[in-house]
Amino acid sequence: MGDLPEAVVREIVARALAEDIGPGDITTAATVDPGTPCRAEIVAKAEGVVAGVGVAEATFHAVDPDISFEYAVHDGQRVAPGTVVARLSGDAAAILTAERTALNFLQRVSGIATLTAQYVAAVEGTPARIIDTRKTAPGLRVLDKYAVRAGGGANHRMGLFDGILIKDNHIQAAGGLGEAVERAREAAHHLVKVEVETQDLAQVEGALSAGADVIMLDNMGVEEIRRAVELIGERAETEVSGGVTLETVRELAECGVDYISVGALTHSAPALDLSLEIGDA
Amino acid sequence: MGDLPEAVVREIVARALAEDIGPGDITTAATVDPGTPCRAEIVAKAEGVVAGVGVAEATFHAVDPDISFEYAVHDGQRVAPGTVVARLSGDAAAILTAERTALNFLQRVSGIATLTAQYVAAVEGTPARIIDTRKTAPGLRVLDKYAVRAGGGANHRMGLFDGILIKDNHIQAAGGLGEAVERAREAAHHLVKVEVETQDLAQVEGALSAGADVIMLDNMGVEEIRRAVELIGERAETEVSGGVTLETVRELAECGVDYISVGALTHSAPALDLSLEIGDA
Amino acid sequence: MGDLPEAVVREIVARALAEDIGPGDITTAATVDPGTPCRAEIVAKAEGVVAGVGVAEATFHAVDPDISFEYAVHDGQRVAPGTVVARLSGDAAAILTAERTALNFLQRVSGIATLTAQYVAAVEGTPARIIDTRKTAPGLRVLDKYAVRAGGGANHRMGLFDGILIKDNHIQAAGGLGEAVERAREAAHHLVKVEVETQDLAQVEGALSAGADVIMLDNMGVEEIRRAVELIGERAETEVSGGVTLETVRELAECGVDYISVGALTHSAPALDLSLEIGDA
Amino acid sequence: MGDLPEAVVREIVARALAEDIGPGDITTAATVDPGTPCRAEIVAKAEGVVAGVGVAEATFHAVDPDISFEYAVHDGQRVAPGTVVARLSGDAAAILTAERTALNFLQRVSGIATLTAQYVAAVEGTPARIIDTRKTAPGLRVLDKYAVRAGGGANHRMGLFDGILIKDNHIQAAGGLGEAVERAREAAHHLVKVEVETQDLAQVEGALSAGADVIMLDNMGVEEIRRAVELIGERAETEVSGGVTLETVRELAECGVDYISVGALTHSAPALDLSLEIGDA
Amino acid sequence: MGDLPEAVVREIVARALAEDIGPGDITTAATVDPGTPCRAEIVAKAEGVVAGVGVAEATFHAVDPDISFEYAVHDGQRVAPGTVVARLSGDAAAILTAERTALNFLQRVSGIATLTAQYVAAVEGTPARIIDTRKTAPGLRVLDKYAVRAGGGANHRMGLFDGILIKDNHIQAAGGLGEAVERAREAAHHLVKVEVETQDLAQVEGALSAGADVIMLDNMGVEEIRRAVELIGERAETEVSGGVTLETVRELAECGVDYISVGALTHSAPALDLSLEIGDA
Amino acid sequence: MGDLPEAVVREIVARALAEDIGPGDITTAATVDPGTPCRAEIVAKAEGVVAGVGVAEATFHAVDPDISFEYAVHDGQRVAPGTVVARLSGDAAAILTAERTALNFLQRVSGIATLTAQYVAAVEGTPARIIDTRKTAPGLRVLDKYAVRAGGGANHRMGLFDGILIKDNHIQAAGGLGEAVERAREAAHHLVKVEVETQDLAQVEGALSAGADVIMLDNMGVEEIRRAVELIGERAETEVSGGVTLETVRELAECGVDYISVGALTHSAPALDLSLEIGDA
Repeated sequence: MGDLPEAVVREIVARALAEDIGPGDITTAATVDPGTPCRAEIVAKAEGVVAGVGVAEATFHAVDPDISFEYAVHDGQRVAPGTVVARLSGDAAAILTAERTALNFLQRVSGIATLTAQYVAAVEGTPARIIDTRKTAPGLRVLDKYAVRAGGGANHRMGLFDGILIKDNHIQAAGGLGEAVERAREAAHHLVKVEVETQDLAQVEGALSAGADVIMLDNMGVEEIRRAVELIGERAETEVSGGVTLETVRELAECGVDYISVGALTHSAPALDLSLEIGDA
Repeated sequence: MGDLPEAVVREIVARALAEDIGPGDITTAATVDPGTPCRAEIVAKAEGVVAGVGVAEATFHAVDPDISFEYAVHDGQRVAPGTVVARLSGDAAAILTAERTALNFLQRVSGIATLTAQYVAAVEGTPARIIDTRKTAPGLRVLDKYAVRAGGGANHRMGLFDGILIKDNHIQAAGGLGEAVERAREAAHHLVKVEVETQDLAQVEGALSAGADVIMLDNMGVEEIRRAVELIGERAETEVSGGVTLETVRELAECGVDYISVGALTHSAPALDLSLEIGDA
Repeated sequence: MGDLPEAVVREIVARALAEDIGPGDITTAATVDPGTPCRAEIVAKAEGVVAGVGVAEATFHAVDPDISFEYAVHDGQRVAPGTVVARLSGDAAAILTAERTALNFLQRVSGIATLTAQYVAAVEGTPARIIDTRKTAPGLRVLDKYAVRAGGGANHRMGLFDGILIKDNHIQAAGGLGEAVERAREAAHHLVKVEVETQDLAQVEGALSAGADVIMLDNMGVEEIRRAVELIGERAETEVSGGVTLETVRELAECGVDYISVGALTHSAPALDLSLEIGDA
Repeated sequence: MGDLPEAVVREIVARALAEDIGPGDITTAATVDPGTPCRAEIVAKAEGVVAGVGVAEATFHAVDPDISFEYAVHDGQRVAPGTVVARLSGDAAAILTAERTALNFLQRVSGIATLTAQYVAAVEGTPARIIDTRKTAPGLRVLDKYAVRAGGGANHRMGLFDGILIKDNHIQAAGGLGEAVERAREAAHHLVKVEVETQDLAQVEGALSAGADVIMLDNMGVEEIRRAVELIGERAETEVSGGVTLETVRELAECGVDYISVGALTHSAPALDLSLEIGDA
Repeated sequence: MGDLPEAVVREIVARALAEDIGPGDITTAATVDPGTPCRAEIVAKAEGVVAGVGVAEATFHAVDPDISFEYAVHDGQRVAPGTVVARLSGDAAAILTAERTALNFLQRVSGIATLTAQYVAAVEGTPARIIDTRKTAPGLRVLDKYAVRAGGGANHRMGLFDGILIKDNHIQAAGGLGEAVERAREAAHHLVKVEVETQDLAQVEGALSAGADVIMLDNMGVEEIRRAVELIGERAETEVSGGVTLETVRELAECGVDYISVGALTHSAPALDLSLEIGDA
Repeated sequence: MGDLPEAVVREIVARALAEDIGPGDITTAATVDPGTPCRAEIVAKAEGVVAGVGVAEATFHAVDPDISFEYAVHDGQRVAPGTVVARLSGDAAAILTAERTALNFLQRVSGIATLTAQYVAAVEGTPARIIDTRKTAPGLRVLDKYAVRAGGGANHRMGLFDGILIKDNHIQAAGGLGEAVERAREAAHHLVKVEVETQDLAQVEGALSAGADVIMLDNMGVEEIRRAVELIGERAETEVSGGVTLETVRELAECGVDYISVGALTHSAPALDLSLEIGDA
């Protein structure tokens, strides 16, 4: 599962299976005798980037560790309709019980990877990196952010605990931008950088004076972004944020910014169509 | 929270907050003094159907039970950009810490309700009900299915435990359709109905003979669906499934089927754009 | 473990062991050197129906996965005093630590299976099926209901979530029986049936008019039950409930009802006497 | 809840409710509008000793902390058919949802208390105390043992962690009775006593020589017990164990033993019949 | 892991790893390719008593069950700087990720064992046993108390549940020492002894009259302890408690007391210096 | 509780109480009638810096939310023997049951704060900040690190997830220092800095070339540290690590380093002596 933390994945998988199986898969228990062997393939039904195969594998193995599961593609690989993604064999009842949950994971992770890959392709050749946000499905953040990496994007901070991002309300509460940055540096440990959200060039100048490591240019127009990038120069990194679409992303990237964050990657990516095709053993 | 089971929601909310806050919201802890009061509004930024306000409320209250939270709309209500959804006041630090998680819930649930409402509108006047599937975000099924109800749709079974749905592989394992239905009836308790998945008219006839309560017409063409509906008559309920889109759903509904299940409602609904606008106390 | 959901069983077993072992089995830790081998047999001390051997196995394996555990009978099998139920070998300390918890499971599940088998025998030759209720030991419902199946009975719904059972108070709150049934059908998904509890023939007629799928005849006399069965005919299934005993059950069954639910199966079954006899390795 | 540890009870109650409610009480959600008021009484339907009213209260309050719950009897009190045990008022939906789980607790705990009281009455006037065993329902030990106290009995050790009980297999593994007792004393902390299980008078003498604090007379006949009690005198306390019934318990008690342990108290007590009678608000 | 309960250790280890790894070891994930082999040794950097090697092993195995882990010393063994404690080999990424947590366990447990061994050595030749208290690190009690045993000490009760220790406030609440002891004996099961805390000789006499099994001499001077020991004779065991140091412990032990409890063993033991030295595979 | 995340503290407190109370505080249950009122004070018995009063409060409130708890000092305040730290009143049984666990937290957190304050005082007037490490008690890291802040120190990263710290083995696995830094920057999000551990001046130069944000000078002598600080200048921050003691810390601080990390703060701080003195209500 690449760089996914296994304990976290195990817990997410267990919870998802519990949600679906509850006190029992009554259809399978009634109709499929224990020990009935079967073979199956996970097959792509649409074009896209597959990711999360390891999570699907973990799902099948949580139901039955004896299921054999072979990868036919690796995470981040582009597939076409009909591409076989993985091959399974083992107890038919276990495979049928795990099927839907495994596919739910795989389709979501692949959907995010696929959308991310489109944004990444759109900015190819520019210095900008496509990054995600904290706008993830509650409880699935490590998977959603893994999907972004698999699609060629990069991550923003994982949560409120591993990066300082000072917004307008923090500034107001702290009594000013300088105070906010100073208080944040004082409180945070020395391996965490400070990013400041700005809405206009005056705020950009304030952030520079305060010594921000990264300056977020939030909901600015293209022209204003260009001037902000020029103003900032090498003094800080820059992140464009707010209302970015596949149509606008390239023009933003060509402004010379370092990062473009896109909430839609994780809150609005359609699932990639994949299915489990089951045969006899 | 309407008919959402509170204990389940509490657990989902706690997990989502833990994921985002982890060992601490280091920005807010550094910049906002405890006890700083503030007021805020949740505001729609796009047109859609709002749902999940109670989950957002539960999120704020999990961080600080003393936050005041007033509903300005009820779940299932249509909003326009600018509509105020809820009004909050309380400790600024708590509100800032809970903000993103609360919005992640609200935007996802509202996104699903909004897409569902579009499908429901598309079949208006026909007997067909739009229903969901088990293709939900892992760990969030009760919320995803609540969202479908809020958007005017109905639910399919909650999981593998509260309804019999016999698919091709179950039939094969059981040694025939009749055997599968019989074994399922024998094993399941007497308040659970039996649905059988069919791919063609021959299978529909088999399902009728076997005494299925509901017959799923899976991935059939419009003409075949019409003939199936005619063949089945009052002998069973019917569910159309597979590849349904906003473009095709009305024609399917006009075939006279009882239910049309749409996976996209929960696996591909874009988030509804909502934001928290924070002012002074 | 037949159709028992493994994840649920694992959790129940872990909790039971934690309750008994807590911070340590101080007797065994003090007196038995690690690695001491032993052999043991689980032996029936009374006549009855054994069930739950897989749960006993899971208990031993939770303490030590290396214990060898062989089934000598299968769940649902009738045993006499002296019948060997299972043979174990492995680390003596682990077997001694797990012994009581494993037997507690096995004796309870077998006790329920044994009592169920008596009720099932009492109605042999009639169309009636003996079913359980939700009157189970808190936290052990999946096991209690499994035991009923092992004893030849059938299950009623698993919980409040997988079947509609409308009682007097629901009817009153909904504003009438017709309204209650209609609201229930509207709210529940299409694979769940609706049962209505009735106390007299007038209510039976009401339930029929409302279109109930199943009619519960609650605490009625034999004569009234006969008339109810006649009145209902094929229009609904029937369940007799309330105060059923081994003395009365056959007469009730001969009234022609479909189901007879017996709370005592799970709330008052005496344990089946079983013991672990330990020898040397 | 008397001396029941609240955190443990809260967890047991939460688990039991989760088991019964799962993703939702679909009947009540459909038929009972939120906020509908109601009154209810818990009423005894049979003669017995009530116990566990606090657990029933905790169950209702876990579903809705605003339910008013008044005790009409105290734990350990004898009731007759018709005796009101508690009075409730509050939200009808919450009361209906919690009803079965609350009664399951109350009926089990009261059933054990009732059976215990019968054994206690049977030995009245003798020095013997009726005590329980570890043969409790898995996961419910603290409640089962509380019930025994409520019925006038006393407890044996809570688990493997809070008392030394050396059985035949421990002796064999330790290389002799003297060695086993010595090793146990050495390993256990100084507030824990050592009990030794014996099957005949020779073993009783061995236990005395080894300095056992308590000697269990396991499955001995009345005459042998009398001689053992005489032999032991004041040198150790005595516990009779094995196959004790209501018929035999008095004769055993009159042998002059200190404790008589009865597994049936917790593994075979029939539930006490109690019901919730719901009226209007 | 000797007599450590494995389920408890597994849970403590899982929690500690979750705390350190959280959503991922970002350094190792970035720099170490999966499957890179390595060898490592745990080496003592100071003189002391090593304990908890099994907990370190459990930590590595929780991250990767395929790591090979060989003990080079056994728990309770004295080591010098440079002594190899264990040898590992396996996946480099897994070993690096687990390293700090494994060492944190090992250093704490060894630190307590080392300090305990100093106290035990200081009283050598006297009848006194060095015992611990409940002043342990919250959540780590089973490990802290195991460490005391590994260092040659003995344990006091594990918690509030497995021994009676009546303090001044209990006596006052119960209405007198005699009442307190009587109520405690009545309530506790028969394998638990009763200890009474005393501050002066008058209280010691009271405790003797009340029949205490153990008398704690709390914060008394050496002369007073001597007189208390004389007064008590064989009628009860004695425990000295309060402000014991390595300087004073021998004089206290020579008073003839049975137990000397030392809070510092678990609340103030410095960690033993140990490190992981990693080489190539 | 200042900037401690409440949900994390609640969980740690619940676990600690469960560990101590288990199935019940048998002494208090037996001797103290429910509802007995009492007053109590937490009093310092030694000189030091108090911290963690909020955690003690949370412990009492977890046992009984109705206990009144007033702070008499604030976290980080220096106290002398006899200083009252907090005043409580409420149910005597609840206070007695919670006492030890509350004090265990308070004494540990205060002990760490006290030791930290000594290191901070030792470097007063220099630019160096005293920081902690990940050498914390497993499961208590958020508290241990809070204690360091309360004592005037600062934190290093919270865990493996919120900062890059490249050690020798990472460099070797990555194929060189430059590669390791590059891979880490690529993989980590843009708000995380990169620290590199160095053992000599050659490695310091390597780290500078690789663009490290922070350079750790590990186990170097004072003279070497001075030259490293000179070499590095403003190009990176510096952290001294390894074998720092109260005797050596000032000389190290005067070398001009930015941070001095001290493992002993959290792995070897003796508890601060505090006690609960209970009076009548």
